[in-house]
Amino acid sequence: MKYFDKILIANRGEVAIRVMRACRELDIDTVAIYSEPDKNALHVKYADESFCVGEAHPSKSYLNKERICDVARKSAADAIHPGYGFLAENSQFAKLVEDEGLTFIGPSWKTIEALGSKVVSKRMMREAGVPVLPGTPDGVTSIDEAKKIAAEIGYPVVVKASAGGGGIGMHIAESEDQLEEAIDKGMRIAASAFGDPTVFVEKYLAKPRHIEIQVLADAKGNTLHLYDRECSIQRRHQKLVEEAPCPIMTPDLRERMTASAITAAKAANYTNAGTVEFLYANGNYYFMEVNTRLQVEHTITEFITGIDIVKKQIAIAAGEDLPMGQEDVSIRGHAIECRINAEDPLNNFSADPGKIVRYRSPGGPGIRVDSGIHNGYTIPPHYDSMISKLCAWGADREEAILRMRRALYEYVILGVKTTLPLQYAIMRNPHFIAGDTHTHFLQEEHIAKSLRRYLYEEATRMQTLAASLRHGKEVAAIAAAVDVYLRKNVK
Amino acid sequence: MKYFDKILIANRGEVAIRVMRACRELDIDTVAIYSEPDKNALHVKYADESFCVGEAHPSKSYLNKERICDVARKSAADAIHPGYGFLAENSQFAKLVEDEGLTFIGPSWKTIEALGSKVVSKRMMREAGVPVLPGTPDGVTSIDEAKKIAAEIGYPVVVKASAGGGGIGMHIAESEDQLEEAIDKGMRIAASAFGDPTVFVEKYLAKPRHIEIQVLADAKGNTLHLYDRECSIQRRHQKLVEEAPCPIMTPDLRERMTASAITAAKAANYTNAGTVEFLYANGNYYFMEVNTRLQVEHTITEFITGIDIVKKQIAIAAGEDLPMGQEDVSIRGHAIECRINAEDPLNNFSADPGKIVRYRSPGGPGIRVDSGIHNGYTIPPHYDSMISKLCAWGADREEAILRMRRALYEYVILGVKTTLPLQYAIMRNPHFIAGDTHTHFLQEEHIAKSLRRYLYEEATRMQTLAASLRHGKEVAAIAAAVDVYLRKNVK
Repeated sequence: MKYFDKILIANRGEVAIRVMRACRELDIDTVAIYSEPDKNALHVKYADESFCVGEAHPSKSYLNKERICDVARKSAADAIHPGYGFLAENSQFAKLVEDEGLTFIGPSWKTIEALGSKVVSKRMMREAGVPVLPGTPDGVTSIDEAKKIAAEIGYPVVVKASAGGGGIGMHIAESEDQLEEAIDKGMRIAASAFGDPTVFVEKYLAKPRHIEIQVLADAKGNTLHLYDRECSIQRRHQKLVEEAPCPIMTPDLRERMTASAITAAKAANYTNAGTVEFLYANGNYYFMEVNTRLQVEHTITEFITGIDIVKKQIAIAAGEDLPMGQEDVSIRGHAIECRINAEDPLNNFSADPGKIVRYRSPGGPGIRVDSGIHNGYTIPPHYDSMISKLCAWGADREEAILRMRRALYEYVILGVKTTLPLQYAIMRNPHFIAGDTHTHFLQEEHIAKSLRRYLYEEATRMQTLAASLRHGKEVAAIAAAVDVYLRKNVK
Repeated sequence: MKYFDKILIANRGEVAIRVMRACRELDIDTVAIYSEPDKNALHVKYADESFCVGEAHPSKSYLNKERICDVARKSAADAIHPGYGFLAENSQFAKLVEDEGLTFIGPSWKTIEALGSKVVSKRMMREAGVPVLPGTPDGVTSIDEAKKIAAEIGYPVVVKASAGGGGIGMHIAESEDQLEEAIDKGMRIAASAFGDPTVFVEKYLAKPRHIEIQVLADAKGNTLHLYDRECSIQRRHQKLVEEAPCPIMTPDLRERMTASAITAAKAANYTNAGTVEFLYANGNYYFMEVNTRLQVEHTITEFITGIDIVKKQIAIAAGEDLPMGQEDVSIRGHAIECRINAEDPLNNFSADPGKIVRYRSPGGPGIRVDSGIHNGYTIPPHYDSMISKLCAWGADREEAILRMRRALYEYVILGVKTTLPLQYAIMRNPHFIAGDTHTHFLQEEHIAKSLRRYLYEEATRMQTLAASLRHGKEVAAIAAAVDVYLRKNVK
């Protein structure tokens, strides 16, 4: 029983390879697309066929909907998997694929569209009975109105410019006195910055956790959850470390959150794999959004449930019913993912593309690596800086952390700066070890300080490693560069 | 709770690294030993300290008991892990380690000694009620005696020279008529070849399966099994493919075999990790031997049980009790191991040491790699040709096979010939897929023929791959060499 004959993967890097791995296991041919600088990328070599879709800039290649559909037609692909990022949550693309008579591997374009709007999706969830952060859905225009709402939802509250973004005009109020000031300031800034003085008042969570539920739903509406993930360690809303299950999960909280996730999916007529994201604080959780696609961190859920999520996506898109019930989905052990980015964690995470002059991936028990790179590969500067995902499984959380540390020690990527030493520092951080994380974790001063200390140790170790591995001028040069870098950047 | 401060690993290659990985996760320092040609080997780089113990020949280095104990003393190691092979089942070494006041990570030297003798161990197991292949434990010297025994155990039987080995003087008898001839011939050959006409008569199993049970026992005698493995695909008694659990296992057979394994371990006062090996045919199983050490294929049991066997070895050696009961050990899914040897499967498996000019290990879901090699590494000619172990886990046997095929496709090792294409052919063989294997699997004519056909396809694919990956003269030279090789060796 073959789900499709040929699938085009409209993506690059590790996620393109991830999808192709599933296709290969299902005996489905694969078509890669690539931009000019990605000509020699691993995902191109991995595929059965590959086609250039344009220049480096994503708008010319990986976001070029028409061109991608042309390739699908030309190569006689019968389905398109969008991966994550790029066109994965673009409802117009999903519609175009459907209009072409091809299968889009993901939810329907209508579902993507509805869930893509924060206003629409929050209203939908509120109506379905899923907890949503209390606040004013339509904005306030007077201090009295704001006071009334704040009294209802309880302090602290946050005042946000309705038309704004990026934190402009955002003020936190801990009391009614502070609220007056916040509304006053907020409205003035909103008016001058956006020409519209309307502001929102919303419950403020100081140090929330990001907890999400993976769901799978088939076309008949059978909807399952694949348990929870904690993804609180983020930088600028980009996750850096994820784990499954959530370390503070209790049977009661799990029951409530998974039930809400299934309610959310059913409310949106969801099919295929998706993730319902929540903010959590003080025993309460609030709907944030639904990610209508495969997520980077699906790997750790695969580790603890034993279910191949990408294969399930393909089967569901082919019209198959889910072959199991909720009672067949169980979890074993604990898994952690570290995102390895070509970025300099000691220099404001500035991207560091370039040539990888030495590469050795970790192995042994409980380790999974999903990467798009290899020895001698040159990371192009045009795309996301995530170059590899390192996952560790353990019989319990402690073993998973120890395995991750061990694997980070083993992972050799020389030639570009990476988040490896930062991840190593996080795995040794007592707050992380205690499971005491929240979305501002990396911004906390005492944590930043301790991470910095570990980073120094780790950078020193990598310098020694680079020196011990030298086989030629190139690596010796790196060792010297690391030395200069250390003197300059680390106290 | 630290089990040891420092462990010396008296081995090389992937198993040395496997043990060091466990030590690193347990925060135990490691000491590597190495022979002169292994100076730059990965296990040396991985360890916290390393010491050269002598020249290339194992007798001068990895088998040099006194020298190894010297290093242990010098480095202040408090325990020695022997890995597998070399000194792992040498009772004198285990005794020497004990006499030095160090901990040998394995069973007691007395247990190793007793189980090392086929005569002693079979007698021990027969007395304990473990099924042993019916036959004459002490040899026969007349045809009448042989006939009587053969009638008891049933035909076919095999006649073997008591003093012999390597199949000399071995004859199979399907009936009493054939037995007369076999005894006559056997005794004459035995007399002329070994100066002793004594022969054994033993039940003959034409196409047995090799099935083994992993056991763990602590010093208090708590003994658990970690389920079964099937290891029938062998060449000259060297396993090539192993899987867990055994594909033909039934609840009843499992209950009987695991009970026999625990009986066997208890009869030998076994402590630490061990494997009880059985031959299986027609619903019956017969004790072969106990491997008193970690086995190469422990990896697949780790995959399905989630238990880290090496960590358990270390904990037990430190005097810890097993923290779980039999009811806590469960299995999930199916795992397969392929042993990747630097050998030429099309040229009688002749060893092919040399430099690895391109190396890329597989990844993604359900894949585990344990290797001692890397890009640019030169495999020395002095040791075992196994260079890597590739394991695949799946939710069921079918998924495990498909994942293994996918991972074999991904695995790039250029510069030396390997068993990769043979393994790929086995994973596509209908008899293997049906679970229809036995210890003579690779010798069967129709299987050899079909493997040969796949080998041709696979070798062609690798040639294409080598060409597509060319980045310099070296790889182009390999592609050319593969071409010459194909023309010469494959019809």
